[in-house]
Amino acid sequence: MNGATAVIESLRRAGARVCFVNPGTSELHLISALERASGLRAVLCPFEGVATGAADGYGRMAGIPAVTVLHQGAGLAYGLANLHNAGRAASPVVNLVGDGATTHRGLGAPLESDVATLAGSVSRWVRTARDPARAGSDAVAAVAAATGPPGGVATLVVPADVAWSPGGRPSRALPAAPAAPAPATMVTVGRDSTLLLGGQALRARGLAAADRIARATGASLLAEAFPGRIEQGIGTPPIERLSGNPVDARRRLAGCLHLVLAQAAPPVMAFAEPGMGGELTPPGCAVERLDGDVTAALEDLAERLAPHIKARQCELAGAPGQPADRPLAADGVAQVLAALLPEGAIVVDEANTSSVALPAGTSRHDLLTNSGFAIGLGMPLAAGAALACPDRPVICLEADGSAMYTPSALWTQAREGLDVTTIVLNNRGYAILRRERARVLAEPGPSALFELSPPYLDFVALAMAMGVPGSRAGTTGELAVLMKQAIAEPGPHLIEATVPARY
Amino acid sequence: MNGATAVIESLRRAGARVCFVNPGTSELHLISALERASGLRAVLCPFEGVATGAADGYGRMAGIPAVTVLHQGAGLAYGLANLHNAGRAASPVVNLVGDGATTHRGLGAPLESDVATLAGSVSRWVRTARDPARAGSDAVAAVAAATGPPGGVATLVVPADVAWSPGGRPSRALPAAPAAPAPATMVTVGRDSTLLLGGQALRARGLAAADRIARATGASLLAEAFPGRIEQGIGTPPIERLSGNPVDARRRLAGCLHLVLAQAAPPVMAFAEPGMGGELTPPGCAVERLDGDVTAALEDLAERLAPHIKARQCELAGAPGQPADRPLAADGVAQVLAALLPEGAIVVDEANTSSVALPAGTSRHDLLTNSGFAIGLGMPLAAGAALACPDRPVICLEADGSAMYTPSALWTQAREGLDVTTIVLNNRGYAILRRERARVLAEPGPSALFELSPPYLDFVALAMAMGVPGSRAGTTGELAVLMKQAIAEPGPHLIEATVPARY
Repeated sequence: MNGATAVIESLRRAGARVCFVNPGTSELHLISALERASGLRAVLCPFEGVATGAADGYGRMAGIPAVTVLHQGAGLAYGLANLHNAGRAASPVVNLVGDGATTHRGLGAPLESDVATLAGSVSRWVRTARDPARAGSDAVAAVAAATGPPGGVATLVVPADVAWSPGGRPSRALPAAPAAPAPATMVTVGRDSTLLLGGQALRARGLAAADRIARATGASLLAEAFPGRIEQGIGTPPIERLSGNPVDARRRLAGCLHLVLAQAAPPVMAFAEPGMGGELTPPGCAVERLDGDVTAALEDLAERLAPHIKARQCELAGAPGQPADRPLAADGVAQVLAALLPEGAIVVDEANTSSVALPAGTSRHDLLTNSGFAIGLGMPLAAGAALACPDRPVICLEADGSAMYTPSALWTQAREGLDVTTIVLNNRGYAILRRERARVLAEPGPSALFELSPPYLDFVALAMAMGVPGSRAGTTGELAVLMKQAIAEPGPHLIEATVPARY
Repeated sequence: MNGATAVIESLRRAGARVCFVNPGTSELHLISALERASGLRAVLCPFEGVATGAADGYGRMAGIPAVTVLHQGAGLAYGLANLHNAGRAASPVVNLVGDGATTHRGLGAPLESDVATLAGSVSRWVRTARDPARAGSDAVAAVAAATGPPGGVATLVVPADVAWSPGGRPSRALPAAPAAPAPATMVTVGRDSTLLLGGQALRARGLAAADRIARATGASLLAEAFPGRIEQGIGTPPIERLSGNPVDARRRLAGCLHLVLAQAAPPVMAFAEPGMGGELTPPGCAVERLDGDVTAALEDLAERLAPHIKARQCELAGAPGQPADRPLAADGVAQVLAALLPEGAIVVDEANTSSVALPAGTSRHDLLTNSGFAIGLGMPLAAGAALACPDRPVICLEADGSAMYTPSALWTQAREGLDVTTIVLNNRGYAILRRERARVLAEPGPSALFELSPPYLDFVALAMAMGVPGSRAGTTGELAVLMKQAIAEPGPHLIEATVPARY
């Protein structure tokens, strides 16, 4: 058995089930091993950013690590931005990066680069396999690193000669379930407290416990602005998300004396602005962190503080009304989606300025957002989520500018027959830049560099290029008809929704 | 004047004329300064890999540095692969990478990353601007670093607060011409010598001098396998390119006793293979390097060794025949192109396994290839070359797999009205992997992971999505008709040429 087979077989025994592959010449033995491994599905991605974004989506929804196979430093480089996003969402991902043979280093081959340094910029764990006999245990160590709470990115660099040389041994199986997180430190919660929930605290159990605590103590509840995954809709407790607009967020947190970060990052401005500090927490506010096993900690707190209080649940407020037919805008897209969303759907939101929150009475669903802000995540993330949850429909809300980063995710969706409906909210420009410019610059004025038309980006043609049926909606009524069809038919669909910029 | 204006104004005074921009919120002040600068054209690229690949193409053809504006670490990451290629082609490129404000570092903002480390992986020079008063001289230092012989990638990181703060001063103008290279060391050339030409030695003057030397001494002449830029066709001396196939290259170099590397990299296998060493030069071959001002060194040698010998020139051998109509294959594409290539064209070749050398009697042209092997370079490179040489038609030969990396380069071509004809040689798979697998694996067998169909990638629809007229050719006759139209009409065109895999 060569080193490549030892790596792949060890990953399979450690619980990996899906591998997102962009193959190259240095990975031929890894590919060969992957094709012979039973129970490890290889998904071809024609661009590394698609492979890493899909791995993120799979990791968020499956809870077991997605594996990627990437080609040397240049291929890894194209995957870095979505690995950055995966890290920010604490998504378990194991990268296998093929590299030139160890005997080949220093010759100046065309693709030679410092793979480990590139990987280190986004990984919590990086190792270069040096010996086929240990390559299997290296792979298992990568899984352990990726699944260690709260989850993250681990990268194993596999030089070609380690892959092809004999002497490989598959490592003993790891338990598929990740190690239990450490018990959380206790925090006090009172009327003056605000609980800011992130990570596991945004899953149904954590949300329910937090809701009970808040009702018993009078504390305030917030979800972080850009959660990796949040369960919401009918049957889950209602919760307000902290605004992504720093002025609104600062206003919301004003007067807060005690902030409990339940697996949430400290709220900061995403982008610095002249004359504004970076922190959103008001001066003098005491900050406590609730890390470790946040679900257990919140449930313990709820049992102590609110033993007889039940969590609230969002309910369907009357029949979900389909809005009257009118020209499409971002809020109309949200209304149509809320009216038609199937129970148990997964909603991916990379609509940026066109993102509108769904009402609390929407069917129960998981919402995945871009915690890391590197655009181009949405369509790959949707592909990975659909592979993790083949029985759940996936709706992907995508902005035009972001859609230009990883469009070949649509091809992977078509190739794998994934049940993803992509709605591209096409406002023909970088609306977020127009908005920020108006906030930040003394004399903003228009900028041609923020306009994506002309030429008009035709997303229906783009879908056709990738083998995905595409259509275009200009009104809420058209969108509703197309969305019903897309949800009813198996396989991927794309609907281009032409909307005005919203800012 | 703020730091951003000082940077942009200094670049303009130092001779920069075009800036390839993918804007983000951290670059608002740089964008604003760029829009106010006269004589510095801002070209919008909807993906960073397009911006950096276009900068490479501009740098290769203009000889003055192209400037990019990239967004933080994630944006730079998407641009790294084509910066790697630019570095291997010794192309002068200056990156301006916006970063969060210095006061914002360490807060854990969503996009926070180690920009300088990422930049260091592909740059010969990296600096972070710290002070608006010095930002102008930082920018000039970047130009000097990028244009220092033989040319390369320089990166200036501009934190947002350095960009927006007052106190900026534009630096004194640099001479637009890059510094002269150092005189080359002298080498001996005799009957046993092989001159391997790269870099500047592949331009008309260097080629002519090398041809004279070879004829006078009996030395052998070769061009490196993947030149960044080579002048060829009618009027230039004929020269054989070293094969990209390591078996063929080793056979060609067998028996070579003395190899002179005239600004060429030592020939090595691009990818290691079991049981094969990495070097292509035979054991015992003496290797001398001719670096520095290689053109002057070759001309000096020619004057000494071949004072009365004129360089040969390729000639038109009879009327350029258009081939008889037949189903299209890669060699047919090359024949049609050779018959129709306009004088002075720029040919970009990222056709990979479908690449077929043009005959020596083709109209004079520059050929640009992918010296760095990171795929996804072709269409951006063509855009940049067209911007550098608006009076010269650009033909881009692109492989289907590589075209999936940076397809939005087509949009930039359409937006700027660039005279680029892209021919996608669609063989529906990663033929290079099929070929390498057959060479390297004991039991190769087919791999579904090397097949890009189904679903069929429809490049005509992709062109339409990006605002470029597209068409499809299945025979040499169809290709000739479409190519004539594309060359005759201004602006970009795409022709999908369906070809069988060639390996």
